[in-house]
Amino acid sequence: MHDQSTICAISTSPGVGAIAVIRLSGNEAISIADKVFQSPVEGKKLSNQSANSIHFGKIIYKNEIIDEVVVALFKAPHSFTGEDIVEISCHGSTYIQQKILEVLVENGARLALPGEFTQRAFLNGKMDLSQAEAVADLIASSSAAAHKLAINQMRGGFSKEIGALRDQLLHFTAMVELELDFSEEDVEFADRTELRNLTERIESLLKKLKDSFQLGNAIKNGIPVAIVGETNVGKSTLLNALLNEDKAIVSDIHGTTRDVIEDVVNIHGTAFRFFDTAGIRETTDHIETLGIERSYSKLEQASVVLLVVDTHNPYLLVESRIQKIRKRIEPSQTLIIVANKIDNGLPETIQQLEVLELTDNEKMVFIAARQKENMDELIDFMIHSINIEAADQQDVIVTNARHYEILKNAHEAILRVLNGLDMQITGDFLAQDIRECLHYLSEITGEVGTEEVLGHIFKNFCIGK
Amino acid sequence: MHDQSTICAISTSPGVGAIAVIRLSGNEAISIADKVFQSPVEGKKLSNQSANSIHFGKIIYKNEIIDEVVVALFKAPHSFTGEDIVEISCHGSTYIQQKILEVLVENGARLALPGEFTQRAFLNGKMDLSQAEAVADLIASSSAAAHKLAINQMRGGFSKEIGALRDQLLHFTAMVELELDFSEEDVEFADRTELRNLTERIESLLKKLKDSFQLGNAIKNGIPVAIVGETNVGKSTLLNALLNEDKAIVSDIHGTTRDVIEDVVNIHGTAFRFFDTAGIRETTDHIETLGIERSYSKLEQASVVLLVVDTHNPYLLVESRIQKIRKRIEPSQTLIIVANKIDNGLPETIQQLEVLELTDNEKMVFIAARQKENMDELIDFMIHSINIEAADQQDVIVTNARHYEILKNAHEAILRVLNGLDMQITGDFLAQDIRECLHYLSEITGEVGTEEVLGHIFKNFCIGK
Repeated sequence: MHDQSTICAISTSPGVGAIAVIRLSGNEAISIADKVFQSPVEGKKLSNQSANSIHFGKIIYKNEIIDEVVVALFKAPHSFTGEDIVEISCHGSTYIQQKILEVLVENGARLALPGEFTQRAFLNGKMDLSQAEAVADLIASSSAAAHKLAINQMRGGFSKEIGALRDQLLHFTAMVELELDFSEEDVEFADRTELRNLTERIESLLKKLKDSFQLGNAIKNGIPVAIVGETNVGKSTLLNALLNEDKAIVSDIHGTTRDVIEDVVNIHGTAFRFFDTAGIRETTDHIETLGIERSYSKLEQASVVLLVVDTHNPYLLVESRIQKIRKRIEPSQTLIIVANKIDNGLPETIQQLEVLELTDNEKMVFIAARQKENMDELIDFMIHSINIEAADQQDVIVTNARHYEILKNAHEAILRVLNGLDMQITGDFLAQDIRECLHYLSEITGEVGTEEVLGHIFKNFCIGK
Repeated sequence: MHDQSTICAISTSPGVGAIAVIRLSGNEAISIADKVFQSPVEGKKLSNQSANSIHFGKIIYKNEIIDEVVVALFKAPHSFTGEDIVEISCHGSTYIQQKILEVLVENGARLALPGEFTQRAFLNGKMDLSQAEAVADLIASSSAAAHKLAINQMRGGFSKEIGALRDQLLHFTAMVELELDFSEEDVEFADRTELRNLTERIESLLKKLKDSFQLGNAIKNGIPVAIVGETNVGKSTLLNALLNEDKAIVSDIHGTTRDVIEDVVNIHGTAFRFFDTAGIRETTDHIETLGIERSYSKLEQASVVLLVVDTHNPYLLVESRIQKIRKRIEPSQTLIIVANKIDNGLPETIQQLEVLELTDNEKMVFIAARQKENMDELIDFMIHSINIEAADQQDVIVTNARHYEILKNAHEAILRVLNGLDMQITGDFLAQDIRECLHYLSEITGEVGTEEVLGHIFKNFCIGK
């Protein structure tokens, strides 16, 4: 059994507003509210009122009126948490908000931990873990695309997909384990070809989900961009020109699940996350090769790599830099070769760059970062580096790093199953890998999970949710 | 008839929170909500639901789910505004809040002006003007004392007092005007002694209310403090020492009625407002006499005047400064003589200061501002310069500058009545002054008032109230 105490918190944004809402949840929610609430109707008690009703009255403390409020009642199990809930709408002064909290605590409630209301909703079976996580994402979402993914996940789109996968896996294990029961008789209930087909379908589904994280993460947190290049080619100037495109730098938002603070910039409505740019900018202070090696290590986290080259350098030099980086680029990444300083570049270098053959995931743009020349073309390439519209075509997009890690593990397990089928290993070994895969999927929806995992997930929520 | 359109606004504090509340008010509130709200119960319409009920559902826009929400219904006239009200509790992302507002506007609502909900409550007779003003004060109140005054005013304490005054004045005019009807017969229905007693009672009541503003304003906005003194006596050092007492500088609060931004500092739980300290600090840059004259002009606005003198100066010089300031101090003000630099002051100066005779509203404290020596004693004097507990003994305290101005005018009118009685002027002149006094009191409760006055009052509200 989980903690049954009645919890309370200010659920609206901190600070002064016209109104604020204070939430109470737990067995004692209504009786605690009754101790401090006074209706203008003589003798009226909240505990005698029906669910989903609203009542006007005063919050009284030691014969003093704290505020005139409107109280809304929700009764277990038909509430957000699955417990009795009282929502008190008061005037939005910080003094009143704090005072009402104090009064509630004095009457037996305790202050809620971050995300504790949602955690209770999960523990009381009102939603699975991935839906609970989506609540935090929904609150933090600041773009239409991120909002859409979060609301789909909250409404169980993701859980449904995981559920379908689990069903298929269970069918698989059932067949294999049936064989185990009759192992001495050397029968094969599970037709190996059929098994292989099923495994391949599951593997491809897991891969699709796992791979969707690149898009999901870009939508949720901004498209990750790395700017690389030798010293003095104009990386810092380019970064500043990009950052100046739109002053609306989105910094870390209070109470959301974002762990690391990075420069997130909205350029023409699309969020880009320039990571560890300070590190990249620092390279002038280091031995050149060392600095570049460090920049390289950032490459694999990026969806878009901006390779800045200086057209004032001889073509051979420039070309060798390009080749070096190309080797490090995955097909899923976009490499944009940014030929900088075209205002005083060598004509020969520019001409040869213009005829350089590019692969499908490569782009080239000629700019003068200092003069902000041709920046629009570069930004256009960046925006189209990730197909955000693809999110509309796909049912489920993974946006959560925890889910991604679990899906990677699940995918590896299913690959072992495939490999096992190839090697014709025995059913009990097959079953073990399948069970492992099943276990991972249950971690996503919270059917299995440790206290620590739950604690970690909910501590990143805001208070009051 | 006032504007009947349906208005909407985010009523909770701006920014990200667990939940946010969007308010709709007007004839169309429920029908507009119905256009965007979808209940999980097939065919359920908000317009068929009873007042004070709560409904779970989705906000839908162009077949896309904006959010899962809880909607509360209030029906005219039993609502805050006296109109139909729909309150939508949504997840508190700024994206969702903005999107729901957009959707409501697209379906026929318009964005509310600041204070427009409260203005409608006033126009629909749900509260008088002074109560409406108290709503804004209540939201802005950040101390227990300010909160108490605001809630008393919102609950009609002030209106009751004004109402009692008006009743007395009406009785007065009735008597006088009865005489006018029979003027040719030269009768005196209104006994002149009785009239005089009544007028004196009204005058004393008006004066009590008017005078309470000093306390009310100090509680609401902080005790006004002026620091004066010659150059180089340590005014800036003293101010910094005071400001450092508590780092919690309360700056202007978004959306409240405070017009002027001043340094408001909470020292040991009491708010002090140091006004135009920059000006006072500047005096070293000016001709001495000019600088001091400028500081003098601040004196009359202060409840507490800190006169800083340098004990390192000869006593005669110090004493002449003290006399100069004394002449400018009203009995209602507190003068604290701050004898500074006692660490290297002249023994003779200190000795003579110690025996200086003080009046009831004067205090003396010996400090070394740079070393922060004896600051506690000074702060103690400052805190007790205004008797905040007095607010408990008095029924009604005027906190509103508009009311104060009106009460001053009303008081002047009643003094003219008193004077008229002394001069034995005719009843029609008496009646005119009484009518004027009555008119002023009606301005407080909003029974008379121009559009501009209303506009000015409500534009200082926050949006959503």
